[in-house]
Amino acid sequence: MLSLVDGEPATEVPLDDRGLQYGEGVFETLLVDAGEPLAWDLHMARMTRGCQALGLPDPPLAALHRDALGLCGAQDGPAVLKLTLTVQGAGRGYARPASVAWRRIAQVAPAPEWPAADYERGIRVRWCRQLWFPEPGLAGIKHLNRMTQVLARAEWDDPGIAEGLLRDPAGAVIGGTMSNLFAVCNETLLTPLIRNCGMAGTLRARIMACAGELGIPLRETMLSATDCHRADELLLCNAVRGIRPIRILGRQSFSAGSVTRALQAAIAGPWPRPASGAE
Amino acid sequence: MLSLVDGEPATEVPLDDRGLQYGEGVFETLLVDAGEPLAWDLHMARMTRGCQALGLPDPPLAALHRDALGLCGAQDGPAVLKLTLTVQGAGRGYARPASVAWRRIAQVAPAPEWPAADYERGIRVRWCRQLWFPEPGLAGIKHLNRMTQVLARAEWDDPGIAEGLLRDPAGAVIGGTMSNLFAVCNETLLTPLIRNCGMAGTLRARIMACAGELGIPLRETMLSATDCHRADELLLCNAVRGIRPIRILGRQSFSAGSVTRALQAAIAGPWPRPASGAE
Repeated sequence: MLSLVDGEPATEVPLDDRGLQYGEGVFETLLVDAGEPLAWDLHMARMTRGCQALGLPDPPLAALHRDALGLCGAQDGPAVLKLTLTVQGAGRGYARPASVAWRRIAQVAPAPEWPAADYERGIRVRWCRQLWFPEPGLAGIKHLNRMTQVLARAEWDDPGIAEGLLRDPAGAVIGGTMSNLFAVCNETLLTPLIRNCGMAGTLRARIMACAGELGIPLRETMLSATDCHRADELLLCNAVRGIRPIRILGRQSFSAGSVTRALQAAIAGPWPRPASGAE
Repeated sequence: MLSLVDGEPATEVPLDDRGLQYGEGVFETLLVDAGEPLAWDLHMARMTRGCQALGLPDPPLAALHRDALGLCGAQDGPAVLKLTLTVQGAGRGYARPASVAWRRIAQVAPAPEWPAADYERGIRVRWCRQLWFPEPGLAGIKHLNRMTQVLARAEWDDPGIAEGLLRDPAGAVIGGTMSNLFAVCNETLLTPLIRNCGMAGTLRARIMACAGELGIPLRETMLSATDCHRADELLLCNAVRGIRPIRILGRQSFSAGSVTRALQAAIAGPWPRPASGAE
């Protein structure tokens, strides 16, 4: 992995970094294809919303772009770029320094493998016991307090299970540990509302825009586990992995249908592309 | 500030540290007096509970003790020792490494000043708008996801305000950003239950044990803001700052009474000790 800290090659941060001490910061994970980070504007818009939600200065967009281009040019194949902003330390305690200074961390690594079967037949997914607790002011943003995701992901180590789904304490399905969920019910695309908790994924935003263009009815709504098990199609999306149908959820099997295929065909990206327009 | 990482003098951690990436870890902040960390066993017990709550290995207690003694011996006056355990990185993503390895971070700094008036007359405190959201599995422990405290502490910069109090979404008072609250009502000592959120402070535990020894009735209970404003005495406690009465909460004034004075007299520590046994 190649990395920059504040634009210079580096592999460490100081102990007083407030990202390390308190998780005070935000990050974005981007897919890099042919040397270009995909959906740059969507990622930077979410990072900007995150900084505002945390009461922190706007992100240094020009410097982040320089970091990104500097690292991505060196990549041959598809890569994953992680951009993190943390608050530089200044003294002890929760009180912020009088003047907040960002620390920029940029890391790049080769993209994971994309087995064609994951995109064609789909992936196996489980329900997590870990709940996603409401914290309205921080919903949707990628801050560095990520123990909920870590604890949910720690519930399984079977490499055959690709993702776990979390619910809130009221039983509403929120999403996967690292992906957003869409269900197709009666030819309508449904996705959990990101209001009190959850992550507002960039590929989720692209799918919502795409559904409009394709004339697929779409609703952000409350989905229960029962709603999911009754769905005609289920899919997960993530900026790095693209759109993968769910093949098995718990003990139930699903098949990718025409809506999943239409979205897979319409969303640009370097992932495997199933041939058929329907099942 | 002097610091050790895994027992060796160091001032940085690697970028892949999971404490930095996700806030995966725990910490303790101890007061050091005459070269000795106070309430060591209570701090280590809470750290152990924290590791268990996060599904992580028990803390390396012997190595932490070596780190502590190594740093504390070099301190002339009272000092603050921060011990942090983070999960070492291994690859990208929320999934934990197959075998979790701790990284130990030990930092020591001079203790803050303890103005005698803060202990005699008391401190000024405000109500925070930021809520402390329930997350039952993580209540009471000192993990590294601390944005709630940072956001609450960012609500004021008036140096005359020493602390802010947080409530949960139902209006129950939980505690300060870095201290626990006790109220005296009808000669009974009341403190918020730490069940769904909040921090189980080590000085809180010492005060609860001490109340038993002194024959002061004590109850862990639900306290509303109104209950606090009707209290006869209010005090805040923190392992580094000791016991300080609240002199002003919002726009209301309070006086330290006999219960506060009895606890200040009974709890051992290097803080200023008001002379009178009562008002």
